[in-house]
Amino acid sequence: MELLKGKPVADRIKEQVAKLAEAMLDEGKIATLGILRVGANDSDIAYENSAAKVANTLGIAVEKYIMDAKSTEEDVLDVLKVMNEDEKINGILMFRPLPKHIDEDKVRNHIAPEKDVDGISDVALSGLFTGNKSGYPPCTAEAAICILEHYGIEISGKKVVVIGRSLVIGKPVAMMLLEKNATVTVCHSRTTSEDLEKLCKDADIIVSAAGKLNTLTEKHVSGKQVIVDVGINFDEEGKMQGDADFEAVKGNVSAITPVPGGVGSVTTALLMYHTVMAAQNV
Amino acid sequence: MELLKGKPVADRIKEQVAKLAEAMLDEGKIATLGILRVGANDSDIAYENSAAKVANTLGIAVEKYIMDAKSTEEDVLDVLKVMNEDEKINGILMFRPLPKHIDEDKVRNHIAPEKDVDGISDVALSGLFTGNKSGYPPCTAEAAICILEHYGIEISGKKVVVIGRSLVIGKPVAMMLLEKNATVTVCHSRTTSEDLEKLCKDADIIVSAAGKLNTLTEKHVSGKQVIVDVGINFDEEGKMQGDADFEAVKGNVSAITPVPGGVGSVTTALLMYHTVMAAQNV
Repeated sequence: MELLKGKPVADRIKEQVAKLAEAMLDEGKIATLGILRVGANDSDIAYENSAAKVANTLGIAVEKYIMDAKSTEEDVLDVLKVMNEDEKINGILMFRPLPKHIDEDKVRNHIAPEKDVDGISDVALSGLFTGNKSGYPPCTAEAAICILEHYGIEISGKKVVVIGRSLVIGKPVAMMLLEKNATVTVCHSRTTSEDLEKLCKDADIIVSAAGKLNTLTEKHVSGKQVIVDVGINFDEEGKMQGDADFEAVKGNVSAITPVPGGVGSVTTALLMYHTVMAAQNV
Repeated sequence: MELLKGKPVADRIKEQVAKLAEAMLDEGKIATLGILRVGANDSDIAYENSAAKVANTLGIAVEKYIMDAKSTEEDVLDVLKVMNEDEKINGILMFRPLPKHIDEDKVRNHIAPEKDVDGISDVALSGLFTGNKSGYPPCTAEAAICILEHYGIEISGKKVVVIGRSLVIGKPVAMMLLEKNATVTVCHSRTTSEDLEKLCKDADIIVSAAGKLNTLTEKHVSGKQVIVDVGINFDEEGKMQGDADFEAVKGNVSAITPVPGGVGSVTTALLMYHTVMAAQNV
């Protein structure tokens, strides 16, 4: 079993980003990521801090907009407008889910497409579907593909099972895999457990974005699978786990990404890459 | 084996359309479909004539814009502009493929979204992907779903294989099936023939939009399949055939749509339905 660590993949992307950011600095410009957080969710703050740290090491500036969880939708849209219009800000990362009283679908579509470096607006998402390349792909979906490609895992002509059909990961990653000529099956909460087991056992690659502990167990693997585990879950002891029961599957798969240490770091590196790309397009 | 004829499905839709069109006529309004044809492709003309006939029986007007195959892209865009701005025209059907010297991707995105009754612009297509319901679904993709629903074939929780990944049918129908809680596998030209056989044999429903004779043979069926055959092909004798080798599969499937007499008539009925819907939204 090969452990598909995210670090070497992220390092290669970061190296490229650092070079691009340095070249911009030489011209007196600095790529800037604007972060919008509404409320004080622990995992948002953790990701925010780690993203800010990564940005710092790469020569990318971060501007934080922190809003109270009780902010109205109108307030959030006003802040987004400021961020959209601020020429210094090249990319925008907005944490989700937003508080429930805010219409997230409405708000995410107010991010200026050219600053939507996390690919959460309909413009970016539809670009993946129609192939019109109208925006940046969602970082997590792209990270799954980058890991496969970094480790030389063939996608074309392979059977890939995607677990999850959200617009955040499932659907976008399915479109990206289809574009790379994989035969793609999308499973989800309404897929019977029997079908899921059979489809996974027959698959060459499994991208799991179910967000549920033990989605993949020894019943789902048959030795040949490459598992990209996008899930971030916490077990009873508060320990971070992926969707796969790692101990149960590790002996009977070809390769698997660890959690933590897998997809996450690549996601952050791609966010920085998109930010520096957005800065260059100004 | 149950033969899933299109006629009863189309008749039910047409009945509804006729009622809506009549109610509009009572108010002195007439729903109008604008047809744009560039060149004189035989199958385009055949469809145009049949659509005009159906429209006529339903109380929908048709305005034809016929352009020479040598028309420039600019000319086509100019005519589209006229059709977009003409308040009498409620829906636009543009035949594709356009002549090769014209950028079809560009032209189709110039159809006003509210008149795009065949769902070919990125706005309509992305609506299917993101679920934001921003347009009409492509008629052929919707026809496949309507046939399944008319005949009471359960979609939720079923394994569906879609053959083809085009924006015209494959991808849109995959999104519509996913929305209806099917477990969807998208196969295409890069899927190995071995994988295609196995996936089809395991499937509950197969929607074939490969556009290739004998895509489905006795090797692809195991008795339980419901086949929706979207293909329109012509055999050596010039006879219209679907993607399935009908004679080879008919004895070993649960149900199948005939070609001709299957998806086609439902597609036309839905085009009229969208047109009358568009007319009501004015």
